[in-house]
Amino acid sequence: MRRFLDLADLERDEVVALLELARRLEKHPEPQALAGKILGLVFFNPSLRTLASFQAGMARLGGSSFVITPGQGTWQLETRLGVEMSGAAAEHVREGIPVLASYCDALGIRAFADGKDLKSDLAETTFNAMAALVDKPLVNLESAMNHPCQALADWKTMDDLGVPRDGRFVLSWVYHPRALPLAVPSAAVHMAAYRGMEVIVLRPDGFALPPEIMERARRAAALSGGSVRETTDREDALAGANIVYAKEWGATACYGNAEGDAGLRKALTSWCVRNDWFARTATDCRLMHCLPVRRNTAVADEVLDSPRSAVQHEAYNRLVVQMAVLYKLLKGM
Amino acid sequence: MRRFLDLADLERDEVVALLELARRLEKHPEPQALAGKILGLVFFNPSLRTLASFQAGMARLGGSSFVITPGQGTWQLETRLGVEMSGAAAEHVREGIPVLASYCDALGIRAFADGKDLKSDLAETTFNAMAALVDKPLVNLESAMNHPCQALADWKTMDDLGVPRDGRFVLSWVYHPRALPLAVPSAAVHMAAYRGMEVIVLRPDGFALPPEIMERARRAAALSGGSVRETTDREDALAGANIVYAKEWGATACYGNAEGDAGLRKALTSWCVRNDWFARTATDCRLMHCLPVRRNTAVADEVLDSPRSAVQHEAYNRLVVQMAVLYKLLKGM
Amino acid sequence: MRRFLDLADLERDEVVALLELARRLEKHPEPQALAGKILGLVFFNPSLRTLASFQAGMARLGGSSFVITPGQGTWQLETRLGVEMSGAAAEHVREGIPVLASYCDALGIRAFADGKDLKSDLAETTFNAMAALVDKPLVNLESAMNHPCQALADWKTMDDLGVPRDGRFVLSWVYHPRALPLAVPSAAVHMAAYRGMEVIVLRPDGFALPPEIMERARRAAALSGGSVRETTDREDALAGANIVYAKEWGATACYGNAEGDAGLRKALTSWCVRNDWFARTATDCRLMHCLPVRRNTAVADEVLDSPRSAVQHEAYNRLVVQMAVLYKLLKGM
Repeated sequence: MRRFLDLADLERDEVVALLELARRLEKHPEPQALAGKILGLVFFNPSLRTLASFQAGMARLGGSSFVITPGQGTWQLETRLGVEMSGAAAEHVREGIPVLASYCDALGIRAFADGKDLKSDLAETTFNAMAALVDKPLVNLESAMNHPCQALADWKTMDDLGVPRDGRFVLSWVYHPRALPLAVPSAAVHMAAYRGMEVIVLRPDGFALPPEIMERARRAAALSGGSVRETTDREDALAGANIVYAKEWGATACYGNAEGDAGLRKALTSWCVRNDWFARTATDCRLMHCLPVRRNTAVADEVLDSPRSAVQHEAYNRLVVQMAVLYKLLKGM
Repeated sequence: MRRFLDLADLERDEVVALLELARRLEKHPEPQALAGKILGLVFFNPSLRTLASFQAGMARLGGSSFVITPGQGTWQLETRLGVEMSGAAAEHVREGIPVLASYCDALGIRAFADGKDLKSDLAETTFNAMAALVDKPLVNLESAMNHPCQALADWKTMDDLGVPRDGRFVLSWVYHPRALPLAVPSAAVHMAAYRGMEVIVLRPDGFALPPEIMERARRAAALSGGSVRETTDREDALAGANIVYAKEWGATACYGNAEGDAGLRKALTSWCVRNDWFARTATDCRLMHCLPVRRNTAVADEVLDSPRSAVQHEAYNRLVVQMAVLYKLLKGM
Repeated sequence: MRRFLDLADLERDEVVALLELARRLEKHPEPQALAGKILGLVFFNPSLRTLASFQAGMARLGGSSFVITPGQGTWQLETRLGVEMSGAAAEHVREGIPVLASYCDALGIRAFADGKDLKSDLAETTFNAMAALVDKPLVNLESAMNHPCQALADWKTMDDLGVPRDGRFVLSWVYHPRALPLAVPSAAVHMAAYRGMEVIVLRPDGFALPPEIMERARRAAALSGGSVRETTDREDALAGANIVYAKEWGATACYGNAEGDAGLRKALTSWCVRNDWFARTATDCRLMHCLPVRRNTAVADEVLDSPRSAVQHEAYNRLVVQMAVLYKLLKGM
């Protein structure tokens, strides 16, 4: 494995093997496995879990890391090609990214969606332009439409909790004051489908995931025996659910149009997961969320503070699965 | 020792033993003592010494650390309970803090006073709410009313300098353009009293330390044979002093009222420690200050640049005593 | 070697030996050479290469590092002497710098030119005031008029590329929207002259390097058999050039006068290195630039993306030569 950019790049067996490696490292730590190795981390967007868990993960394997945050301690980096750089950005990623790659043994990059042109974001224009410049092992720390580390952690979390491989996984849109990117919902539907689950995307009108994302999840379902459908009917979706995976995202019906998005979402504040959402789910149905979550906006205290919540477990698994990814990338075993 | 939150949580003998451990590690370094251990550091407020000395301290013991600064690279964290999170904070400490704790072997948190409600700050509402969420060894990197690492470093500094255990310790208010928190003065009076000293709090009218803080120091004095009193009379306080411990803090007479505070302090710019403050002190009286200090505002160049100043020694001891704290928390010996 | 502040502090033989050490460490890594050693890095100005390469370099030698960025996570530090600190800066470098030095085994400081008073910047007033406070090995991470790490990396890059010792080195001013400091051009002319090259400074009227800088380069040339001259004639300068070293800097004719500078530079946007600049150079003439570079403003895509460009090689060599500097400072061999 030379890159970890998309769960879909891995055969299903490879994902399972990566999760086995994660469990092995969890039980039998190897504190010198990556001694002398250096991970460079580049954050074009804020981070808490990714920042802390990658630094901790490298340290737990005996390696080290450095962090670059363009626009904060480091100048802004230009990502567009061919422009005359007379604005705020002092350096182009065409220089900055290969330079950073030359200092480390593996590089991680976080670059959220531009959020203006859906086609461009679906094509991962920005991330791919940078990835093409890197000749070292590379990790996607969240791109426009993907978050493979989160997806892998979520898969392991469901394994840990004994959620049936063919259980019902409901990805539900939840309210947020602003449009958020599609990276996590896109990664989550694909992951659950690839795991073999009955995936239902529950979302209001105007918030359907792009056809390309749904189709990608369906291809994964075809390989694993799972299924993928979408609905606006909450009661129908939640009945018998094993997982409610709550996530905020922007209105795809008016992608890149903040006013249009605001108009659609203002009537949707009731999309906050509360205890009554679990009235007809499986008894042991769990709440998942990638975090950060706005309490009592996206998910109510009563759910987050209940035993249903798996959010801490998911976040902890970020550390565990990323150690496996780093191990695989840097040790190749 | 599972937590280092308050010097008052330790028996006096335990403080003395911790200082002995610090001296041992200073003389006989153990560069592999904490190999493989990870310290997470969370700074809700700016830092120079604490940030650098904890990272250096972990490294000197063979461990590593990561730093999270909410609002800078990481989104803002909400600390209030039960709120509907529709504002600037994207994540609640109820998620963020346990997640970070799950990535490391020990956690340090800095969270200054809210500075609005004295009762709430005296109760350490914010810090304690976070501390309750942490199941790993925890260090107070400065809270609303405490700064135990500074207190421990100051105690060691006085030991190093041969300041008599029963010497006169004058905590003097000094001028600053704005109201600063009560954490350091509160920790300092308690520490000096616990050491067994004759503690005098010298401050203008309106700047008395809260009765709860004075009472806490008196309890410590009762255990150690020291004493605690307060005065507005500079000449009286400084006569025979072994230590002048300069510190800026806000007007407690109008806590949380910036205008009232400004009105009180505007006439107090003469509270800047100058050479003539030492006219009637012990000959070898030393100046202490936790830093940062505003030169020629709180303390004059002539004092800071003279051999009286112990501020560098105090700052260096931050590293030394914190290594002992980390050693104790993570190695338990 | 106790300090690495200026290439001119080293005998020419010492520079050559340092580059040999760099090549040795490049070929035969010593991953435990600096085990247990700590480097403190203080950035008063933004950084990408310096920040990442020093952290990576320490890690590659088994050591560790911490980063302090005044004004970001840490309060602003006052650098002026004798002032009454009632403004934004909460701490003076007279306290902050020695404190940080006491936590580490070597310290690096970046402090750009104030850009107001040329005499003061030529005297390195700010950097030297801090350097005087440090009793540990010290590295200049870029000061008002110097950038010795960049100079050393550039020297090695020319050695790596087989650029003749007595080749023609053209330092050419290039366009930038604002006045930038003189540190890199000053270091580059001295370095190339010290290497023994025929150095030509090509720059528009008003942008001559200060006489003190030119004189310093000429002294180096006298020791090495090189030469130094300046011109405004691009054709003359570039004929037969082995290296075009592009760099942006401020108008010295009106140093510290932003309006005057802007007036001079507005007619100079054609000073952007394009392919036609190489029409009469040596066939294998290379482009050098310290980065960050504004594409199509200072240097065109067609040059940066061509095999002429040595900018990645230069940036990579930052890591390599700095490892030699750290090794020398901390191991003394």
